[in-house]
Amino acid sequence: MINATHDPDLRSWVESANSAGTDFPIQNLPFGVFRMAGEPLARVGVAIGDQILDLAAAADRGLLPKLSESALSACRAPLLNAMFALPAIERAGLRRQLSALLSAEGDGNRLAGMRAPRIVVPMDSAEMRMPVNIGDYTDFYASIDHATNVGRMFRPDQPLLPNYKWIPIGYHGRASSIVVSGTPIQRPSGQRKDPAVEQPDFGPSKSLDYELELGAFVGAGNPMGEPVSISEADERLAGYCLLNDWSARDIQAWEYQPLGPFLGKSFATSISPWIVTREALQPFRRARALRPDGDPAPLEGLDSPTDRSRGAIGVTLEVWLSSAQMRVSGVKPMRISSSDFSRLYWTMGQMVAHHTSNGCNLRSGDLLGSGTVSGPTPESRGCLLERTWRGAEPLTLPSGETRKFLEDGDEVVLRGYAEAEGRVRIGFGECRGVVHPVT
Amino acid sequence: MINATHDPDLRSWVESANSAGTDFPIQNLPFGVFRMAGEPLARVGVAIGDQILDLAAAADRGLLPKLSESALSACRAPLLNAMFALPAIERAGLRRQLSALLSAEGDGNRLAGMRAPRIVVPMDSAEMRMPVNIGDYTDFYASIDHATNVGRMFRPDQPLLPNYKWIPIGYHGRASSIVVSGTPIQRPSGQRKDPAVEQPDFGPSKSLDYELELGAFVGAGNPMGEPVSISEADERLAGYCLLNDWSARDIQAWEYQPLGPFLGKSFATSISPWIVTREALQPFRRARALRPDGDPAPLEGLDSPTDRSRGAIGVTLEVWLSSAQMRVSGVKPMRISSSDFSRLYWTMGQMVAHHTSNGCNLRSGDLLGSGTVSGPTPESRGCLLERTWRGAEPLTLPSGETRKFLEDGDEVVLRGYAEAEGRVRIGFGECRGVVHPVT
Repeated sequence: MINATHDPDLRSWVESANSAGTDFPIQNLPFGVFRMAGEPLARVGVAIGDQILDLAAAADRGLLPKLSESALSACRAPLLNAMFALPAIERAGLRRQLSALLSAEGDGNRLAGMRAPRIVVPMDSAEMRMPVNIGDYTDFYASIDHATNVGRMFRPDQPLLPNYKWIPIGYHGRASSIVVSGTPIQRPSGQRKDPAVEQPDFGPSKSLDYELELGAFVGAGNPMGEPVSISEADERLAGYCLLNDWSARDIQAWEYQPLGPFLGKSFATSISPWIVTREALQPFRRARALRPDGDPAPLEGLDSPTDRSRGAIGVTLEVWLSSAQMRVSGVKPMRISSSDFSRLYWTMGQMVAHHTSNGCNLRSGDLLGSGTVSGPTPESRGCLLERTWRGAEPLTLPSGETRKFLEDGDEVVLRGYAEAEGRVRIGFGECRGVVHPVT
Repeated sequence: MINATHDPDLRSWVESANSAGTDFPIQNLPFGVFRMAGEPLARVGVAIGDQILDLAAAADRGLLPKLSESALSACRAPLLNAMFALPAIERAGLRRQLSALLSAEGDGNRLAGMRAPRIVVPMDSAEMRMPVNIGDYTDFYASIDHATNVGRMFRPDQPLLPNYKWIPIGYHGRASSIVVSGTPIQRPSGQRKDPAVEQPDFGPSKSLDYELELGAFVGAGNPMGEPVSISEADERLAGYCLLNDWSARDIQAWEYQPLGPFLGKSFATSISPWIVTREALQPFRRARALRPDGDPAPLEGLDSPTDRSRGAIGVTLEVWLSSAQMRVSGVKPMRISSSDFSRLYWTMGQMVAHHTSNGCNLRSGDLLGSGTVSGPTPESRGCLLERTWRGAEPLTLPSGETRKFLEDGDEVVLRGYAEAEGRVRIGFGECRGVVHPVT
């Protein structure tokens, strides 16, 4: 079925949405929550070029006439939870209306002249906010390249544990410290132990790292005790964002046995403000997740997707770094990694099926992280632990500075985009964070 | 300083609160949330004998005149988050007023005749509800007896890992599946691997277990980036409940490396409906947490409490079990474990200081679990994994049935109480759950 909202010839009356470099053409239409200076309330918006369509304003002006009461109410909410709780078919209906409304043809064009100043605001005059009230946050470990690299460092005899190819490994993360892009990241202190000395000590982390991930937000939840079947699991994810799972490697190494990562991660997790919908990403599906010949087939209930509409999603993910010195000197950020989301060993749909297989309830707005997305080459390793091989191979920045791990003042920017033959490229915007010293 | 609300001679005009066996004498006054049949809204209440004092009704009738606006508003809320967000001194003030209001002397006695029918309802006519909206749930591992027992089973050469005596080990738990006592617990299915066979399989857990814990609710939270110092940490906990960390040992064993427990726990966690306040537990403090001579002193910032008011809390914790057959035959439940909360290696205050030491923000109503509370004897082991030593030493029930792990129809009841010389015993009520088969 051809979906008109993906039509590569579609153009918007918002001119900036038609330029080749934009992350937010009319084929994208990601959701976010913004606040205008001087206004007390946050509002749901949709990114279009360098503008934001104000959904409450559009609804109030009668420009979204085909929506249900609950969908209208979701457009007027200050967070996206109600939007994600809608049946997926209602979000798809909203997408069609938004596409028509923003189109340079037909009704959209007619409305543009009349209404545009009231329903569209410049993105650079808005403050982007945490878009969702996240009940629970789960982080997975689905990149086999990442798991193998980390395993090689810590368990050279057995890099990949026996369970890795059978279940999507994941753990519960901390929801309270998830922040939106742009929030300063304070270097955490913690206890760590140098193997060369007898006792641990406490102080600012000496091996602060980023992790390049995508996050997926749960749409309609499932009641406790009622697993989501693999055939329905992918559709349960409403949209995707960039996610930086900041990690303090020294704290993590000392604490993580036997119950897993805790304070090495819980000080901060950053997400991008724009959530790219599942609908917008459908044209970028690939046939299946990475599972080389000879690997075991997943057990029933975790089956690899057989149809493309639930397959792996092709998203190029990038990490850009700039030091404080570089920014002062006007040196551009350096791209230090580029990897491909479709290389994950498990799809996000498989993660949903696994997560609920024991009856665990997911709620609308819960966040699932993919885990660090690494690839097979040094340039595609998604965190500094891998990229510098635990500091053994430091990176040299354009300023001549070197990096084993993050220094105070460093800014990490994650970017992501999907492109395919005959399709208009769509992007995720940015997920930014500057490392601040311990106060 | 003598606190009149702990006076052992204090009696209530609610006669059932004066009987020797009650968990809820006037010296206790735990908070909960209840709903009366036919009423749509849940209300905050305080347990007194076999009755519930309705805080909104008491406030509406002008019986709590010395409260701040925010405290009055917390009394009228449908959840306890606002109550826990109050400064501790305001909850202490409310406790004094409630004590006076329910006292058989003075104003209390005079009010009793006039107002009692309107502000007190029978507990057995009320439905107890989830008392708190839990943002994040963290589970610790603070019983050294438990950690040593489990370690002996899985790592005979090194039962206790090197970090155990240096930091309170903990991990993030699942908040969405925390349920109130009485909620049926469906046996989870999951993937597990028998060491004797080559491949894992999927099916209902064959080793379902309970874990006997106390939970502590966060009172006033801390902003991100601002650790709570050890001297202020204990006061940040507003109250305590019984907690059953249901665990599927076969699922847990297969999944837990390297990121810790996940689906082996996330299917359900039960808590008792009544939350015993920190104030009520103060008379049952002991000088310090268990830390034998020769063990390392904690690093600065995690110091063991030097004053009794922040020391370990003496609470006797019990597990009672009945099979479906026992209940049909009228056989009383069997007490299968009894242990002592004060034997934990770390206090809950130390856990708060550790949890926030990296800048992680705790929010009012967040829940911290103590971890399974075991003791040094077989009878004090707080889960079946330990109690039956992984099934090697099955329990025999009064019905003649035996148990290695939980069977469908089994009911687990946790109980807890604090007692001390010259003090009135206070209790936690019950935390119940019946195991239901996979549907």
